[in-house]
Amino acid sequence: MTEPAGSSGRPRVLIVGAGFGGLRAARVLRRAPVDLLLVDRNNYHLFQPLLYQVATAGLSPDQVAHPVRAIFRKQKNLEFRMVEVRGVDLKDRVLQTDREPLPYDFLILAMGARTDFFGLEDVARLGFGLKDVDDAVKIRNHVLRSLEEAMVEKDTARRRELLTFVVVGGGPTGVETAGALSELTRVVLRKDYPGLDPNLVRILLLEAADRPLAGMPEDLAEAAVHSLSRKQVEVRLGRQVEGYDGSRVRILGGEEIPARTLIWSAGVDAVELTRTIGTPIARQGRLAVEPSLQLAHHQEVYVIGDAAYLEVDGQPLPMMAPVAIQMGETAARNILRSLCNQNPLPLRYRNPGSLATIGRNSAVAYVHGLKFKGFVAWVVWLVVHLIQLIGFRNKIIVLVNWAWDYFFYERAVRLITPE
Amino acid sequence: MTEPAGSSGRPRVLIVGAGFGGLRAARVLRRAPVDLLLVDRNNYHLFQPLLYQVATAGLSPDQVAHPVRAIFRKQKNLEFRMVEVRGVDLKDRVLQTDREPLPYDFLILAMGARTDFFGLEDVARLGFGLKDVDDAVKIRNHVLRSLEEAMVEKDTARRRELLTFVVVGGGPTGVETAGALSELTRVVLRKDYPGLDPNLVRILLLEAADRPLAGMPEDLAEAAVHSLSRKQVEVRLGRQVEGYDGSRVRILGGEEIPARTLIWSAGVDAVELTRTIGTPIARQGRLAVEPSLQLAHHQEVYVIGDAAYLEVDGQPLPMMAPVAIQMGETAARNILRSLCNQNPLPLRYRNPGSLATIGRNSAVAYVHGLKFKGFVAWVVWLVVHLIQLIGFRNKIIVLVNWAWDYFFYERAVRLITPE
Repeated sequence: MTEPAGSSGRPRVLIVGAGFGGLRAARVLRRAPVDLLLVDRNNYHLFQPLLYQVATAGLSPDQVAHPVRAIFRKQKNLEFRMVEVRGVDLKDRVLQTDREPLPYDFLILAMGARTDFFGLEDVARLGFGLKDVDDAVKIRNHVLRSLEEAMVEKDTARRRELLTFVVVGGGPTGVETAGALSELTRVVLRKDYPGLDPNLVRILLLEAADRPLAGMPEDLAEAAVHSLSRKQVEVRLGRQVEGYDGSRVRILGGEEIPARTLIWSAGVDAVELTRTIGTPIARQGRLAVEPSLQLAHHQEVYVIGDAAYLEVDGQPLPMMAPVAIQMGETAARNILRSLCNQNPLPLRYRNPGSLATIGRNSAVAYVHGLKFKGFVAWVVWLVVHLIQLIGFRNKIIVLVNWAWDYFFYERAVRLITPE
Repeated sequence: MTEPAGSSGRPRVLIVGAGFGGLRAARVLRRAPVDLLLVDRNNYHLFQPLLYQVATAGLSPDQVAHPVRAIFRKQKNLEFRMVEVRGVDLKDRVLQTDREPLPYDFLILAMGARTDFFGLEDVARLGFGLKDVDDAVKIRNHVLRSLEEAMVEKDTARRRELLTFVVVGGGPTGVETAGALSELTRVVLRKDYPGLDPNLVRILLLEAADRPLAGMPEDLAEAAVHSLSRKQVEVRLGRQVEGYDGSRVRILGGEEIPARTLIWSAGVDAVELTRTIGTPIARQGRLAVEPSLQLAHHQEVYVIGDAAYLEVDGQPLPMMAPVAIQMGETAARNILRSLCNQNPLPLRYRNPGSLATIGRNSAVAYVHGLKFKGFVAWVVWLVVHLIQLIGFRNKIIVLVNWAWDYFFYERAVRLITPE
């Protein structure tokens, strides 16, 4: 049934997931004497840090998604397949998929994460996650449709509901989404909807803790709150969402916020697959790994990125791109070492800091212990994201779009597409 | 129930459809003492002539669709509403919609056309039309998914089926789609699918008549066939499609073509709405109009573009953008005339000629009696389409994409998105 592993006689390294971690691992192994097989359920790599700009009509999906085959066109030892993964047979070293099973000698699991609605089923059904292209396009359509509906809604209370956008979760994604939504609705769309009273528009950012941006120093978080407030985002701290019926957000303690849009960026957990593998699961559904990123009893299996659970200095590593990239590098190097019969080395994590933009001219950045805010941080944010985008054409087109938005207060992709 | 027409005291002109005709009519009336209300079921104007490039992964939807509100931002006498039209009450002068009814003093019907599958239900169900953004994205996804499936398909016959793409209809859209599909699959994607035998790829263009491009002189049609053949498109003339089961295209006479993709550009007819109005219907479901574009017994109603049936010199005007634009102009001017108690004037149709590109460096053009083919016609085609695209940013970004495709043999938007 299954193909012979490494029909070339070379060991087969199977990488599950074409996210930041999987891509880096594949790149590091580009000259290795192995047969690389990369699988993903999509045919593209998604640049997640800019996904919120798709949701807020600034970029189109193709500008943040790059075909995997185009990325690896010149890498001769790599093959790509678009498949859904069903499970891992650790004993027989075979990956189960919706197509034929795929045998491996080394496996790198880099499946990433999904939105975690914390068991709030009504929020999952009526709110929006923001993890993939489909989520982002749905949010864009919904927000623009809400504005169209507000134009023809005669009842003031219902119009206010249509114009209230609640973002839940004060991490970088939540902060960036709230900032971008505020600019979309207030600055840009006011020009297009002269009949709408701008005072009816509300953007709320709800965070359960007593501060946003948990990964950043206190004063930068404060700067972010200040900057959000200046962009007329109402930041509400210590607010835990309890439920949502499509028009009322219920907060623990009894408060209710009338809103037809709820964007949930309060939690992520590892994709379902981790639960089916049969090895210990840590917090957020993540697979506990050795410091070398191997599974304890399956040294040929590496887990990286959001799917992996590893503590460094007593703290679990966060689910973010730089961690995934460093892990991809370590896992690939350890596979190279084991091909030379060397022992694997532990991940040596270097905290790269973090960045969040609040919108036009405003961001906070904490990089190598240095703090930036305001315009300087915003320029840092722009440069870092443009550099990391894959593909020169994407860089050019994204730059054109950003420049246009900046100088003309105009969003490129204000389309309501059929779903 | 209904709003007072022209609450400003000025007559209300209601335009149904934000296509080429509706847009032109609205523009001509920009300084008229009327209240313009433009409605469309989408929030964007679609530049249909480039839609086939969305279907073949060259452009993204936002590059051929422009928000109506952005187009008319500065036109103070125009309001836009995104509604579905349900019917027209000619007697009471009210447009029925999925929202509240909209009264009018003058009505311009510019609803456009839809794909006409000639009653072939299996083709409608299993094939693809190419009239709106959704159609185009579905074709793109399907074509790219077929290539991915062909990569893992072991059976040669089935792989050949997956790699056979049939375009039905030899009009400009069919010719352009077949040419672009050939370039997508042969030139561009061969780099990304080194495992696929390029000899298995087939692109067929089926036309029921004995020549394609009916609107062009014979020798240009021949040049187009020659050019398509050089791009390895098999042009089959005198072939009438009788049915399709998803993997076999049945031709009248018994021939069968195994193919998993069928793109239908053989026919269009006016949108359903025309049948419900209760005035005489001509061929293709179009509403018969006076030379002034008015309905015979309802002088306040104009029908323009694909929805209108009018013969000039014994020939019905074709369903294409230049006709719609000229009709929009005439209808708007006749409304202006009737505001001054002048009699309406008949449409004075000037045939602008027609253009079709076969792909890289090759097109045919028939403009003002002049014939162009090859590279010159291709440059004419590029310039004409770039000029007509709405929005300077769209022009820049489309130009970047085209230049990239041209110099690097690379398609921008090779994404398979969830549907």
